[in-house]
Amino acid sequence: MESEYKLNSPIFYVNPKAYVFGKELLKFAKEADKISARYDIQIILSPQTTDIRLISNNTNHLLIFAQHIDPLNKGRGHGLILPEAVKEAGAQGVVLNHGEYQLKFSQISKAINIAKNLKLLTLVAGESLSELAALSRLDPDIILAEPSELIGTGKRSDENYIKKSIKIIKDIDLEVKVMYGAGISSGEDVKDIISLGSDGAGAASGIFESDNPIRVLEEFIYAMNKLV
Amino acid sequence: MESEYKLNSPIFYVNPKAYVFGKELLKFAKEADKISARYDIQIILSPQTTDIRLISNNTNHLLIFAQHIDPLNKGRGHGLILPEAVKEAGAQGVVLNHGEYQLKFSQISKAINIAKNLKLLTLVAGESLSELAALSRLDPDIILAEPSELIGTGKRSDENYIKKSIKIIKDIDLEVKVMYGAGISSGEDVKDIISLGSDGAGAASGIFESDNPIRVLEEFIYAMNKLV
Amino acid sequence: MESEYKLNSPIFYVNPKAYVFGKELLKFAKEADKISARYDIQIILSPQTTDIRLISNNTNHLLIFAQHIDPLNKGRGHGLILPEAVKEAGAQGVVLNHGEYQLKFSQISKAINIAKNLKLLTLVAGESLSELAALSRLDPDIILAEPSELIGTGKRSDENYIKKSIKIIKDIDLEVKVMYGAGISSGEDVKDIISLGSDGAGAASGIFESDNPIRVLEEFIYAMNKLV
Amino acid sequence: MESEYKLNSPIFYVNPKAYVFGKELLKFAKEADKISARYDIQIILSPQTTDIRLISNNTNHLLIFAQHIDPLNKGRGHGLILPEAVKEAGAQGVVLNHGEYQLKFSQISKAINIAKNLKLLTLVAGESLSELAALSRLDPDIILAEPSELIGTGKRSDENYIKKSIKIIKDIDLEVKVMYGAGISSGEDVKDIISLGSDGAGAASGIFESDNPIRVLEEFIYAMNKLV
Repeated sequence: MESEYKLNSPIFYVNPKAYVFGKELLKFAKEADKISARYDIQIILSPQTTDIRLISNNTNHLLIFAQHIDPLNKGRGHGLILPEAVKEAGAQGVVLNHGEYQLKFSQISKAINIAKNLKLLTLVAGESLSELAALSRLDPDIILAEPSELIGTGKRSDENYIKKSIKIIKDIDLEVKVMYGAGISSGEDVKDIISLGSDGAGAASGIFESDNPIRVLEEFIYAMNKLV
Repeated sequence: MESEYKLNSPIFYVNPKAYVFGKELLKFAKEADKISARYDIQIILSPQTTDIRLISNNTNHLLIFAQHIDPLNKGRGHGLILPEAVKEAGAQGVVLNHGEYQLKFSQISKAINIAKNLKLLTLVAGESLSELAALSRLDPDIILAEPSELIGTGKRSDENYIKKSIKIIKDIDLEVKVMYGAGISSGEDVKDIISLGSDGAGAASGIFESDNPIRVLEEFIYAMNKLV
Repeated sequence: MESEYKLNSPIFYVNPKAYVFGKELLKFAKEADKISARYDIQIILSPQTTDIRLISNNTNHLLIFAQHIDPLNKGRGHGLILPEAVKEAGAQGVVLNHGEYQLKFSQISKAINIAKNLKLLTLVAGESLSELAALSRLDPDIILAEPSELIGTGKRSDENYIKKSIKIIKDIDLEVKVMYGAGISSGEDVKDIISLGSDGAGAASGIFESDNPIRVLEEFIYAMNKLV
Repeated sequence: MESEYKLNSPIFYVNPKAYVFGKELLKFAKEADKISARYDIQIILSPQTTDIRLISNNTNHLLIFAQHIDPLNKGRGHGLILPEAVKEAGAQGVVLNHGEYQLKFSQISKAINIAKNLKLLTLVAGESLSELAALSRLDPDIILAEPSELIGTGKRSDENYIKKSIKIIKDIDLEVKVMYGAGISSGEDVKDIISLGSDGAGAASGIFESDNPIRVLEEFIYAMNKLV
């Protein structure tokens, strides 16, 4: 089943993780929403689960992704994140297997299937080239390629890794979007990554540990926009 | 640090787990809110994380508990449930170590500490008598005693287990509330459990797999109310 | 790096899990060793970790596989199963991601790499067709395809699943051996599975919950042998 | 049920973790065995699971502990460490919930019960004072108190933590032995920790990352012996 949302490269992924939440995130999200509209670039934002509905109800252009869903259907399952609840709260997609929240293999494959049935987009993270090839076979919408040892370090994946991973993934499934996350800290970084043929870039600490998250985001999106 | 919310026995714990969520849960919660006020009995409700804010914003008497928090502070931690985010969304407390979502020992102890600092109430679940004694030493506000093999079966803990566990827990910490969850399916069950000296009872499938969840809840609360 | 052990189809996988161990398993293993020699069929046996050395030192034909390894190298890692220790104890291979011990995706991919460097064979288990396709990209030596809901039930995978999964896996990597595990309880079952084009079959409860494990094993191997 | 092994303070715990295994560990263990006899000090050694039988069969004085057991009985449970298998391989005890291998609360409580039934000694690790108090209620034989942030750093727990934790634990159960692990790197460290009233000390990196593990162990045991 197809998602009802269409992805258009280049895409930018903003990950607040546990850095920013609630009202502070809402303020950020409203500005990010305007930036998405102004530059006509899709921005994915993944709030804390508590904030999906709040952010979704108050923005129009952002693609809201849950940071995680568990592969379960209505019923028992205390403490687990129910995909249907995430959908009903307004999410358009879900992130799975982030380097900081790695999942069992069967959880990834089952969660992708449940998300597809709910027409939720899926962004799945992986590291090595063979992992990325394997994940491509699970038919996600987006693959986020980032060596976990680089997360939060400000160091970027090298050109060789980026080129090879794009080729491997697209050879298996041309429709999968490929994005790169770790170590994005300037518009130049974003430009480089897009120029190598990727479908997008993402940032967390690069934005939310900066003095002015919205200004940093706009720098990233501006760099992307010039490439379209 | 003390929580800002005061617990008054008997208390009833309603656990929607992944049975009911979003608008359907909101409708239920509004009715439960009225029942709590009408009978002057505290009702704890633990919605899906996505729904904490929605339910909290639209009820006045219910105590809203998160189904889970992770022991982390603001910062990294993709996919984890940030206690501060849960608090800001309107929760008054948190459930930890439910039989369907068992936690590492150090997670429980750290999450209780973080919850206390945020003045969130803590409800911790355990099974055997030695487990309940151990959990009492972590200083939670409420202990939910339920053998996990009984969850969802409609079978209740026996009188011997209830009496012994109350004694063991209160001997260690007289202030901890002790509640019983598994197998509550009638007002008679609730009455029996309260009569044995407990501080409350709880239900999940007994309510949400019934034909009329609100009517079942009212039966439970009515049975409690007569005992006050 | 290539393993030093060569796999020749058809292969049979005997999984004692936690059913049988120590001296009782040793007695079984010595008989199984003779059966392997007599019928010239490779038999994989995965003892409890405690028994790898004992079984390896006292058999000549069996391929001894660890039930699990963790992806780590020498150093810290209390409680984890060190691949080098498993190799030194005499294992020729390792099982990863069994339905009863499912691993994180990154654990599977890293453990396969470490095993390859140590020239240990790898047997990786998976369920759905997309999972099996994904696992094929991680370059294991053997894929064990078994829907986890069938494990221990005596019910077999259906013909359609077997045919499709063989095709999907072999299309990606012709060298990967494909075996089927759940529900093997007679020589007829073994014959059917091999006839559909698989490289082998496996059993756990079918053997170790029977009255005469060695007789059952010999029935399975005899059925295989006639097909060579 | 009582264990068949009697613990006599002071005790020393040597943890090879994944640093040393197989033949190299056997050589170390034979020397450690002599040191234990020479100074009449009990030494606990926890080898890789693969090596329990090898070390147990070739030493006479060491107490061999498994690094981990899972709370299960004979039957299904692929990949899990069966307590009965560990016992049959020659272990006298088990380590549970080490800082590098933290367990679910219910796993700890169930594994302690299973170990007791098999007359295996139990050594359980914990961190904060409230955790140690809680663990005391689960009735282990030994508590290893070590803040996980100190493991492998060469930094020791401070005097205040040691004194308070001994008091808290012994107030709950006078028979539990209390040991301290992190940051032991000299005989002086060992002497200090014993002098504060503890039942023993332990080391991993302090021994196995040194140039001469056996000499370091002997220094530790010599320091203990003078205190008896």
